[in-house]
Amino acid sequence: MSNHKITGVFSAATTPLNADGSPDVGLFTEHCKRLIEEGCHGVALLGTTGEANSFSMGERRMLLEAALKAGISPDKLLPGTGVAAIPETIELTKHALSLGVTKVVMLPPFYYKGVSDDGLFNAYSAILEGVNDSRLQVILYHIPQVSGIPLSVPLIGRLVEAFPDTIVGIKESAGDFNNMQAIIAAYPGFSVLCGADPLLLPLLKAGGAGCITATSNLVADSLRTVYDHVHDEAQTAKVDAAQARINGYRTLSNSYVQIPTIKAMVGLKTGNAGWKRTRPPLVALTDAEYAALAEGYAQLP
Amino acid sequence: MSNHKITGVFSAATTPLNADGSPDVGLFTEHCKRLIEEGCHGVALLGTTGEANSFSMGERRMLLEAALKAGISPDKLLPGTGVAAIPETIELTKHALSLGVTKVVMLPPFYYKGVSDDGLFNAYSAILEGVNDSRLQVILYHIPQVSGIPLSVPLIGRLVEAFPDTIVGIKESAGDFNNMQAIIAAYPGFSVLCGADPLLLPLLKAGGAGCITATSNLVADSLRTVYDHVHDEAQTAKVDAAQARINGYRTLSNSYVQIPTIKAMVGLKTGNAGWKRTRPPLVALTDAEYAALAEGYAQLP
Repeated sequence: MSNHKITGVFSAATTPLNADGSPDVGLFTEHCKRLIEEGCHGVALLGTTGEANSFSMGERRMLLEAALKAGISPDKLLPGTGVAAIPETIELTKHALSLGVTKVVMLPPFYYKGVSDDGLFNAYSAILEGVNDSRLQVILYHIPQVSGIPLSVPLIGRLVEAFPDTIVGIKESAGDFNNMQAIIAAYPGFSVLCGADPLLLPLLKAGGAGCITATSNLVADSLRTVYDHVHDEAQTAKVDAAQARINGYRTLSNSYVQIPTIKAMVGLKTGNAGWKRTRPPLVALTDAEYAALAEGYAQLP
Repeated sequence: MSNHKITGVFSAATTPLNADGSPDVGLFTEHCKRLIEEGCHGVALLGTTGEANSFSMGERRMLLEAALKAGISPDKLLPGTGVAAIPETIELTKHALSLGVTKVVMLPPFYYKGVSDDGLFNAYSAILEGVNDSRLQVILYHIPQVSGIPLSVPLIGRLVEAFPDTIVGIKESAGDFNNMQAIIAAYPGFSVLCGADPLLLPLLKAGGAGCITATSNLVADSLRTVYDHVHDEAQTAKVDAAQARINGYRTLSNSYVQIPTIKAMVGLKTGNAGWKRTRPPLVALTDAEYAALAEGYAQLP
């Protein structure tokens, strides 16, 4: 795996909110630092799990700046910068670079559906030409069940060929293992990172580069165990146990709508019920759901 | 129909671009003024056909300001202000109001899919509370094939009940006539405006309030004929002929991807091929497509 430009366990960090709906910046940076301490190679803040597209441009810039001010190295931050409008994707990406943050996770423009590969290629090209910074490393973001915009294997190839030093990986959040294998086979050295925690172990065995997952908000240590020891046959039992623990958390997080549930579980882990809050259109768990979740959570290893 | 707060023929105006991809402001305002002259009661700028979500917040504000500066009355402008992030929807809506523009077309937050009616109700409530201006009149925007977010009949009812003076209508762009009839039956006085031109005549007969359509960029005069004379039995032949003309333009515009095709047709109408340009992820027609389109266009009445 050493040929991957980006490899590791990255957390799709959740974003806590104050009672008035604004980001709880102190709690957010505390959370990001804990994720690093627990074993994440980096924090992929401001993604789908982080409710980034529910925040304004100003809020997004502020959260990235706060993570840096809290002492997290720019090398360990991978913000989401892809929005619907190309000029704003350029602006957010340039902002990250201005702070020394060179790795970003980039959604395609996601308002229009059924757009062609030519259109998506043109969009990413326009963004990269607009940013025009050789330091930039982009992780494409394939999450068609949310964005509505699949990134096809041929499109990835066109982008890698046109921008070999910049388009370095993909977050595959469709959870389609065949798709991950197809991308690995087609583009050696290109980093495939899974969004679904249960696929970390099989993906690493198949030549993938790691993960950017939601469950890492809860069990980063186990994800790191899988990542560090996957190729050590003497550690198979330990690795399998870690993956099983991850899968248990993931299953519980799917009991209700995933993002509010992950947030509620972070609250249960840290003893801070403020984590339950979400920004509309997401809805926080009901008290009854939270109580049932707490019972399930108490039984996890 | 006199009980509708918003009624008429409104154009989902297209937005021309300069060669560098920036909005061609002069050509845009000229187009908006022509739409009014040709019979539109108002211009619903910055919607899906207008590629609004491909423009930055700054570009959106600038285009609305330019339309006003060009002399169009604020009463005749209905900008789209709904984006993925609630704070930015509030900001765009307040900006419109600050200019005296009180009617807006508002998408729900459209990044997350499969969100609940509770979540959408909370989102619209948070927006209206954030804007907090009694002058505001909102046309909800139901275009699930693009936004991915249907607005259900019960959700509309909850919003109308909670905000009776503000939530005054819906742009129904799914093209589902049964859905339009269900909304009319459920909420008398609530303005149902169709997005599909062929439905204007049947919708008006069924108690609808009018339309916000793409083909109005080309045949506003015919749409106005339908609107003005629908209830005059002596004019049935004239009205039917106008609707047939509209339908011919609509059919041709569906020969290729609709938005680039509508833009190209405006170019053919006005003799300005610059109208062909689109912003990624949309793709302009190829030269061959444009040539074939021009042949078809020349045969339209």
